[in-house]
Amino acid sequence: MTTDFQSWASQRQIAIETFLNARLPAVDCVPVRLHQAMRYSILDGGKRVRPLLAFAAGELSQADETRVTVVAAAVELIHGYSLVHDDMPCMDNDVLRRGKPTCHVEFDEATALLTGDSLQTLAFELLAERKLSDNAETQLAMIKQLASASGSRGMAGGQAFDLDNVGRMLTLPELEFMHIHKTGALIRAAVMLGAHCSNVLNAAQLEKLDHFAKCVGLAFQVVDDVLDAEASTATLGKTAGKDAENNKPTYVSILGIREARALAEKLQYDADQVLHEFGEAAIRLRQVTDFIIKRKF
Amino acid sequence: MTTDFQSWASQRQIAIETFLNARLPAVDCVPVRLHQAMRYSILDGGKRVRPLLAFAAGELSQADETRVTVVAAAVELIHGYSLVHDDMPCMDNDVLRRGKPTCHVEFDEATALLTGDSLQTLAFELLAERKLSDNAETQLAMIKQLASASGSRGMAGGQAFDLDNVGRMLTLPELEFMHIHKTGALIRAAVMLGAHCSNVLNAAQLEKLDHFAKCVGLAFQVVDDVLDAEASTATLGKTAGKDAENNKPTYVSILGIREARALAEKLQYDADQVLHEFGEAAIRLRQVTDFIIKRKF
Repeated sequence: MTTDFQSWASQRQIAIETFLNARLPAVDCVPVRLHQAMRYSILDGGKRVRPLLAFAAGELSQADETRVTVVAAAVELIHGYSLVHDDMPCMDNDVLRRGKPTCHVEFDEATALLTGDSLQTLAFELLAERKLSDNAETQLAMIKQLASASGSRGMAGGQAFDLDNVGRMLTLPELEFMHIHKTGALIRAAVMLGAHCSNVLNAAQLEKLDHFAKCVGLAFQVVDDVLDAEASTATLGKTAGKDAENNKPTYVSILGIREARALAEKLQYDADQVLHEFGEAAIRLRQVTDFIIKRKF
Repeated sequence: MTTDFQSWASQRQIAIETFLNARLPAVDCVPVRLHQAMRYSILDGGKRVRPLLAFAAGELSQADETRVTVVAAAVELIHGYSLVHDDMPCMDNDVLRRGKPTCHVEFDEATALLTGDSLQTLAFELLAERKLSDNAETQLAMIKQLASASGSRGMAGGQAFDLDNVGRMLTLPELEFMHIHKTGALIRAAVMLGAHCSNVLNAAQLEKLDHFAKCVGLAFQVVDDVLDAEASTATLGKTAGKDAENNKPTYVSILGIREARALAEKLQYDADQVLHEFGEAAIRLRQVTDFIIKRKF
């Protein structure tokens, strides 16, 4: 019997937490302060949206859940590193993240810099050290995929494009370009790496799954913009209204809030259309998508 | 006939430059500023000591030079990322590197942050995207090795240990601990990854080579400290005398300059002893070691 989404998700959130807790260097391991900061920045935080997507895609491809846990953790480490660096004074200069002081506030800037650096390294270390596919060549391709999604032509590139355009009004295609890189690339990688932990899906199916992941990645960002425009800092667990204050282009600033909400629904519809073709095996992907679109924080 | 060291080295320096120039995203590739900064920070710079060690180890193991070039480039990208981040105001706050303004001075801090991040990512992307070993499992082990050498228990960890101890006098074992991580780990990785591009060496030989690499890594740092204490900024191409000014513990501050020089010679002797067992095949490793110890900048 299929368990309900909430208990499915919380089981996987616990699995990720347990795995990361065991794999991150212990707090008494030298250099102590760096390892404390790494654990502080990664553990006990966030909704683990990317890991949930990896797990859901892993279920679609009937992958070994132990393997998917490693992949999900690696993606979360990349996400975590990007948050630590994005919050730094030279970037977004944010003081609150997941309801706690940001890493450079709790520790210091130099430690935050090295923390982000080391979290990124650990992501690749994880992907290389465990068996994630029956085929080592596939595993190399998975590492390549995470790197492409994270680097200057993926997540970091989207961040740079964002910085280059602060205070400038973007067109909708430019905004989409930015988000396809800044958040979309890593979300796609989460889905695809989860699926690649087995070799059940064929090339055509993987392509469909990739299209689904693109829709979800964009929807995630549209919803993020809507929430930032609407929510209070207390609900959000990070400083709200920063986008408008920083004069950052968002889906809300370009489309208005009503149109932005409609776009999120349209993207969910497109994503669901793809999943429809996978039938019942895609139930978790459908539920995670719904969770992403309907979330309140 | 064996060509002389200088022409051997400059051929390999050109090979690395050519490879990196082709592989780094073009300057007109969006985000333009980030890609300019990545190229600025990596191209046309440095002695390429780590790549030369990788090439020399590759010759010892009769590895395909195309493969070694990729490995050498990946190690250099990790080294380059660490320099960009170390130079930032929240770390060493240095304005000069390789005779040019540092990345955050030439561009800005946010770009320097993303540049370091993206150079690291590109290192792992490189190691995953090309065939570097006849055995894909070995290639995964090589990626694991570079990650371990770079992360919180390797290079970044050494940097954190350094920061934690600025202004404090270290004991010699503590200083050694710091450098084994901060510079030694990546130098070891350069040697071992170069050798792993073929499977000619057996486990005992690889272990000896690793011991050699440890000696060279430490020697490199001892010489660095001596040069920093002696040289002028013009000769060094980076701000000289920073260590003393920052009250940083160095081999010179702990041992004095004469003893520090003697230690470098002792380490070279140990390294040469290991190489002796490899005979003529180790000629390039012997020459690169000599180059590292005898360099004037």
